[in-house]
Amino acid sequence: MVHVTPPDAGRRSERSRRAIFDAALSLVGEVGYDKLTIEGIAGRAGVGKQTIYRWWPSKAAVLLDAFTADAEAADHEQALPDTGDLAADLKFVLRATADEFNTPEFQAPYRALAVAAANDAKVAAEFTGRLLEPGIKVYVDRLRRAQQAGEIAAGVDVRIAADLILGPFTQRWLMRTGELTYAFVDTLVDLVLDGLRNPRP
Amino acid sequence: MVHVTPPDAGRRSERSRRAIFDAALSLVGEVGYDKLTIEGIAGRAGVGKQTIYRWWPSKAAVLLDAFTADAEAADHEQALPDTGDLAADLKFVLRATADEFNTPEFQAPYRALAVAAANDAKVAAEFTGRLLEPGIKVYVDRLRRAQQAGEIAAGVDVRIAADLILGPFTQRWLMRTGELTYAFVDTLVDLVLDGLRNPRP
Repeated sequence: MVHVTPPDAGRRSERSRRAIFDAALSLVGEVGYDKLTIEGIAGRAGVGKQTIYRWWPSKAAVLLDAFTADAEAADHEQALPDTGDLAADLKFVLRATADEFNTPEFQAPYRALAVAAANDAKVAAEFTGRLLEPGIKVYVDRLRRAQQAGEIAAGVDVRIAADLILGPFTQRWLMRTGELTYAFVDTLVDLVLDGLRNPRP
Repeated sequence: MVHVTPPDAGRRSERSRRAIFDAALSLVGEVGYDKLTIEGIAGRAGVGKQTIYRWWPSKAAVLLDAFTADAEAADHEQALPDTGDLAADLKFVLRATADEFNTPEFQAPYRALAVAAANDAKVAAEFTGRLLEPGIKVYVDRLRRAQQAGEIAAGVDVRIAADLILGPFTQRWLMRTGELTYAFVDTLVDLVLDGLRNPRP
């Protein structure tokens, strides 16, 4: 038997999907992750909660898909700029990332996802696989190109080098130990590239 | 009217406090932070839940006090070793810290607190002020001594330098992006001290 989809069903479900994503992203910013419920998302999106349960097993899954769809739409996983000046390129991108993390609409759902991931190994696997690692990979790729160009020392593990840049940034934001300012990201990049030792290169 | 405390009351309340802390730390490892309740802690500790509510406003507060009491008992906030070899001292301490973070009894309550802090700015202020910042300060102090000894370049911001070491470590553990191995912490220390650039100092 051939399954015939009515002509409008695809468009209608895409509309519902988008409404559910918008509802999840805005609600988590308003009520926080703890108080976010499938019922609440359904109500805001104007769909039945069974529609959500048919597609997603949990609120974390809805939020992750919503956030990933947004990130993909914004081309977040593109390559880092490569002007030949690694320090300048890293500062440029980290300043833009600081602006983004300082924006409430971005930071509320991303924090909710990070918290859910830190709390639960299964959510963590999804979160790191679909959002965190692709974000780290663009740094790894840029650092590898810098290594090939001779700007970075040959023996450096570029994956751990990426952690050196992103770990302090994320930690400061997640634990609220300081502000994500341009001065902070500039200092971070310079320290990571030059190292702490005296004398400097 | 003079309030007379019965001779055993102080000792009894210290015993209850200790029982409540032990119950909170073991329960959070068994059921996770989400399912940890004041009722559950009271039941395990053999006290009435009003006893807990009289002393603490929330489960986060109980857990933070329990964890801080343990850390203070273990002298966690002592100074880092100073053998005159900064790299060796940092690797020594970070290897011990990796062992600790790889221990389930330590990591379950600490993760629960970190998650609660990431989720809630008020818990974050308590968590960073009482646990995180004192832990960072011992690194800042050691780095400042290395700077005075001429091992670290004069212009380096030692607070951000401490973030460079602890941020990637914490991030890897919290988001489960990799194992906390001795090889990882050794590489981390070498990269932070030497920097990424070619040529090296």
